[in-house]
Amino acid sequence: MKLLLGSGGFRGEERRDALRHAMRQHFGDIRRLLFVPYAISDGDAYVDALNRADLNAGYELFGLHRASDPIQAIEEAEGIYIGGGNTFRLIHRMQIEGLIDPIRRRVKSGLPYLGISAGANVACPTMQTTNDMPIVRPASFEALGLVPFQVNTHYYKGNIHIRIGEGEYEEHFGETRDDRIREFHEEIAVPVLGLWESGLLFRDGKQLKLLRGPMRLFRRGQDPVDFKEGSDLSDLLNEVR
Amino acid sequence: MKLLLGSGGFRGEERRDALRHAMRQHFGDIRRLLFVPYAISDGDAYVDALNRADLNAGYELFGLHRASDPIQAIEEAEGIYIGGGNTFRLIHRMQIEGLIDPIRRRVKSGLPYLGISAGANVACPTMQTTNDMPIVRPASFEALGLVPFQVNTHYYKGNIHIRIGEGEYEEHFGETRDDRIREFHEEIAVPVLGLWESGLLFRDGKQLKLLRGPMRLFRRGQDPVDFKEGSDLSDLLNEVR
Repeated sequence: MKLLLGSGGFRGEERRDALRHAMRQHFGDIRRLLFVPYAISDGDAYVDALNRADLNAGYELFGLHRASDPIQAIEEAEGIYIGGGNTFRLIHRMQIEGLIDPIRRRVKSGLPYLGISAGANVACPTMQTTNDMPIVRPASFEALGLVPFQVNTHYYKGNIHIRIGEGEYEEHFGETRDDRIREFHEEIAVPVLGLWESGLLFRDGKQLKLLRGPMRLFRRGQDPVDFKEGSDLSDLLNEVR
Repeated sequence: MKLLLGSGGFRGEERRDALRHAMRQHFGDIRRLLFVPYAISDGDAYVDALNRADLNAGYELFGLHRASDPIQAIEEAEGIYIGGGNTFRLIHRMQIEGLIDPIRRRVKSGLPYLGISAGANVACPTMQTTNDMPIVRPASFEALGLVPFQVNTHYYKGNIHIRIGEGEYEEHFGETRDDRIREFHEEIAVPVLGLWESGLLFRDGKQLKLLRGPMRLFRRGQDPVDFKEGSDLSDLLNEVR
């Protein structure tokens, strides 16, 4: 399996260059990527926005919403890219259109997969570490299961702050991300990787690397552990739970 | 119907005093409140924490998890208080224990209701404007429907910022709360009230007041409108959709 999973938050040219570079390395010399825009309501607008921001990394993005036969488009794809937005909407649409099994099967047979934000969430066993609002109710929270752990995208540490003026910030007291992941572990024992914005995980077969970090690993009942960019995380693929 | 709905974020004595005062006004001279702790995994710890922080407002908090017959406890309650935590867990447990109909029936017949954070979310038609992580999958997103609008608790405006050092903050690029509510309105037309932390809404029959604010009202396809503390919001109860 060849996977590139990104946290989201690719703003600014340095972060965007890092993503483009990783995409070129990951997909290589193919011409066209099958792009799944279903986390956003308007597929055409999404493809246009990526092209305008030069976030196609030189590939032609073919939106799955434009395919006359989506299953055939998946069967024929040379690379697949699932974009961000709302994870509930994404998995709901993937279920309704019967895309889960075909995508899972092809990626497990070697089709290179890129998932950013919601697209990284759905690569996990379930979508239950999403940060998104439950605007629709999917028939199941099960996702593609391309890795044996959960990713929490757009991860950050500590309380958030709201900007209330020039250089002035007010602390916000909602649950921290660590609180939410602890709540997850009260229900489910699967490890969670908190991936900071613009972070990238790369899997090639039995190898897993933190291509761009940092990252924080949460396990049920244990203190979280921080990992630096470049860390070899391959052991996480071999754990038996 | 008598409802007091709070946003959460009741930190610091000024905010806590405001909550205690509102609770005394709301519940009056009763002795005991039936407290529903199911948004948190440990009911005893939750009741203890509220008592220690003097957030019982002088009432005896009787945890529903301690009731030998929960339905009877609801039937006999003089006031009910649903606390915060994870909204998915809360509604899931309320469904499993068959609490939704009995609570809805009693509150619609005049039992004073207090809901903070997750407890305010479940007073709405659905729990679909929660900020929480989907750590369990409830059989339905339907909630108590005590008001004809959604509340988004812990509301804030703009991007969030992470504190990275003394007086130093980094901008975070995940969806803003306004982005998430816009996504909600792409799917569902119900108005959403964004209630800032420590905000309080009070309903008495056909009257609805922003007891403590501010608040931002979102309607599908319209620009949001800000409301100040003390605003009369009764018109929101009479809207026909």
